[in-house]
Amino acid sequence: MKLYYSSTSPYVRKCLIAAHELGLADRIELAPVVTMPTAHSPELMRDNPLCKLPTLVTDEGQALYDSRVVCEYLNDQGGGALIPAGGGKWAALVDQSLADGILDAALLMRYEVVLRPAERQWPAWRETQEEKACSALGQFERAVGGWPADRLDIGVIALASALSYLDLRFPDLDWRGPHPGLAAWFADFDQRPSMRATVLKA
Amino acid sequence: MKLYYSSTSPYVRKCLIAAHELGLADRIELAPVVTMPTAHSPELMRDNPLCKLPTLVTDEGQALYDSRVVCEYLNDQGGGALIPAGGGKWAALVDQSLADGILDAALLMRYEVVLRPAERQWPAWRETQEEKACSALGQFERAVGGWPADRLDIGVIALASALSYLDLRFPDLDWRGPHPGLAAWFADFDQRPSMRATVLKA
Repeated sequence: MKLYYSSTSPYVRKCLIAAHELGLADRIELAPVVTMPTAHSPELMRDNPLCKLPTLVTDEGQALYDSRVVCEYLNDQGGGALIPAGGGKWAALVDQSLADGILDAALLMRYEVVLRPAERQWPAWRETQEEKACSALGQFERAVGGWPADRLDIGVIALASALSYLDLRFPDLDWRGPHPGLAAWFADFDQRPSMRATVLKA
Repeated sequence: MKLYYSSTSPYVRKCLIAAHELGLADRIELAPVVTMPTAHSPELMRDNPLCKLPTLVTDEGQALYDSRVVCEYLNDQGGGALIPAGGGKWAALVDQSLADGILDAALLMRYEVVLRPAERQWPAWRETQEEKACSALGQFERAVGGWPADRLDIGVIALASALSYLDLRFPDLDWRGPHPGLAAWFADFDQRPSMRATVLKA
């Protein structure tokens, strides 16, 4: 399998954490590409018209995207339970949505200040996205105390990826301060080999 | 089940088309809310910290989001095959991602011109999003000739919802001109009772 890859993409990291947890990492060839909303990679474009990371090309040549589809495919390939079959399925999928929501907001915040010319930036937009991210973090903080210590599913993998992206791009946000339970959970989860093998690098 | 609802939300429409196709529409109570990225609904916020539509509250009181999770839940509840179990699964899910990518781009284009003050708008951002949408439309145009005439799965439901949103908000885009095959497919699909029952209204 070929995975279009960037070391700064939190959605790529989500897939890689899943691959490591499923024992599939050594079956994935990484294809580094540089892509931004305003700068396309022609190679990636051929496999994904949206030109977004991650995109996985299977051994049969089928291009799969976005990260949710890739993670579900990897879970199937690995015979895993990252998407639980039973009652925990909907909680795991909703937590994935919530964590992806943090990331979507963080990426919009990032694009606002990195891509957009300074005079075209609109502080209210950044604030709105930050509110969404913080509201979602608050929900996780309220929930984390009720999780099994060894919880491992696509919801927490997405969450770990989102938190690591906040650390990479928004260190001043200090998400740990108001969310001590989440901070303690992440400190523990972040020691997993799947996390150590996939650290985001700017 | 309660579905937070807006008559202009294409992601809500995706869920409603699915519900109608699955015979579940009369089990869903619509809860109209007004929400925009910059104007929150406190009621919706209680069930979804991201304050995004759609959000479904099940009869057991569990809040489900986003549209992909809601559609998968509805498909399970209705015992449907909108997410095929066999080999068509990945094609359906990738097409859903591609169609959702059109919608994400269209929504960012819409927010750019409707929410953001004129002097803060950045034409290159709008153009970039329009390119993504058009690139995805081109992919569908190349593929549509190979589809069964009666294709019905979450991929085409997402696509129909995306095209209807372009008609609602971007009539000047004239997506039909360069995509005659897709236009013919949509003209046919749009006659389904599930489409007639869920028309977007500004």
